[in-house]
Amino acid sequence: MIEVHTVLRSASKTITIGHDQPFCIIGERINPTGRKKFQAQLREDDLSQLAIDIEQQVRGGADVLDVNMGVPLTDEPALLGRAIKMIQSLTDMPICIDSSIIEALQIGLETYEGKALVNSVTGEEERMDLILPLIKRHGAAIIALPNDATGIPATAAERIVITEKIIMAVEKHGIPLEDLVIDPLAMTVGADPEAVKITLETIYLIREKWGLNMTLGASNVSFGLPYRHAINAAFLPAAMSHGLTSAVMDARTPLIVEAVRAADLLLGLDPWGSNWISRFRALEAANAATEA
Amino acid sequence: MIEVHTVLRSASKTITIGHDQPFCIIGERINPTGRKKFQAQLREDDLSQLAIDIEQQVRGGADVLDVNMGVPLTDEPALLGRAIKMIQSLTDMPICIDSSIIEALQIGLETYEGKALVNSVTGEEERMDLILPLIKRHGAAIIALPNDATGIPATAAERIVITEKIIMAVEKHGIPLEDLVIDPLAMTVGADPEAVKITLETIYLIREKWGLNMTLGASNVSFGLPYRHAINAAFLPAAMSHGLTSAVMDARTPLIVEAVRAADLLLGLDPWGSNWISRFRALEAANAATEA
Repeated sequence: MIEVHTVLRSASKTITIGHDQPFCIIGERINPTGRKKFQAQLREDDLSQLAIDIEQQVRGGADVLDVNMGVPLTDEPALLGRAIKMIQSLTDMPICIDSSIIEALQIGLETYEGKALVNSVTGEEERMDLILPLIKRHGAAIIALPNDATGIPATAAERIVITEKIIMAVEKHGIPLEDLVIDPLAMTVGADPEAVKITLETIYLIREKWGLNMTLGASNVSFGLPYRHAINAAFLPAAMSHGLTSAVMDARTPLIVEAVRAADLLLGLDPWGSNWISRFRALEAANAATEA
Repeated sequence: MIEVHTVLRSASKTITIGHDQPFCIIGERINPTGRKKFQAQLREDDLSQLAIDIEQQVRGGADVLDVNMGVPLTDEPALLGRAIKMIQSLTDMPICIDSSIIEALQIGLETYEGKALVNSVTGEEERMDLILPLIKRHGAAIIALPNDATGIPATAAERIVITEKIIMAVEKHGIPLEDLVIDPLAMTVGADPEAVKITLETIYLIREKWGLNMTLGASNVSFGLPYRHAINAAFLPAAMSHGLTSAVMDARTPLIVEAVRAADLLLGLDPWGSNWISRFRALEAANAATEA
């Protein structure tokens, strides 16, 4: 199988997503959804929380940072541009520019130094015709969701059909396939006992059929259920073993990050456990320092 | 796909292993391997440790208890018989009778009240011709390993070939296929970065080809590596998502048992999370009691 590599860059750092690479953890935290205090701060143009969110996610083990500034009643494009500028002054992590507003993506891409990942486009013609030229112009990479105007397809087979349509559109716009990252769509198993099985099947089929990189909103699977960390920690190794190569996820909870790094080791993506053993030694050193 | 059910029974309790059932946790603890103190006790006919091992595993969430009395320089068959008698006086958990000595299996099966799982037979003709008639006579179920005199096959395809041979032998001996549980062979990823991928592929193929139940020694995958609990906790959801239906495993570590129960929920084996939510409530009640 051809190993597709999606390369992301900040001004000084490169991250490669691929089936032969350790899993790419995209920190989900810089997002005002469900964060009232952060929303209020952003409405007053106070971006100081970003430094905390960055520090926690970098320390937790993020490889890339998702940045979403979707606060109602604000100038999202301007806010996103300022946030990206600020983040790039604080860290060399590559960024995933996350918005459903085309003007925000536009300003985000113009501001960003490096090669960004854009989150996201759906399989609707009008959306693709708006967003893909922007991706092409900036040489960025794009996350595409195999849903369309009719909603989220209930079966893996339907998701594959829309993925095929997305691949054709991406090629038509002259974007190389390695810059396309498919989101196989993760929904909560609390609403449908089959939801995760369908996601795993979609991941497996996309891996087999095209070898493309994939990402998804991993925390979705446990929405509405208690003890979410343990559910998310179990989901990621299963998804990785089916071919998932990255996720927009909680990078601050050790239980979840450890599950991903253990799965790297189990799946041969950390040969001889060199990353795992370094991680363990760092943990022991930190514990020893705490106890001393 | 036909859902094969392997039914195990003690005198009063039934456990069903199947692809449509919650994962079957077979507690690995009653085994003297690597336990010097326990070995010394067993050499002096002191079985008192069994009560502790049973209590911890039942509390931890075991569904079945593996019982291995393989201590050098003892009368293993007699010891195993006594252990089974004692265990059945202390718990109603079904038992997995674990020995490589045919006389021990014989006495174990004669002593056991109910329908036992026997661990294990390999794909060698002579072994199968010795053990399968015993399984048939007692109406027990059997774990079979797809390795033979030439050792452990390096590829999934070779394991499938031996599995086919085992299936033919089991049928020849008049044992129903639902009483055959295949061990797809789990080895440490510390010795071979491909080891777990080969195990996962074997699990997937056996599930697709025959729908048989499977079990394996889950703790093997992390042998020789640090921070084993996290590796084992990541392995099980991945293996379950490929079709593993049970494991001889650590039933005493909450991290690992939780990973299994979360994977049950994710894979639709705990619809609407009723087991998961009960578990969470029990945990909260226990925490509240500790804090009070």
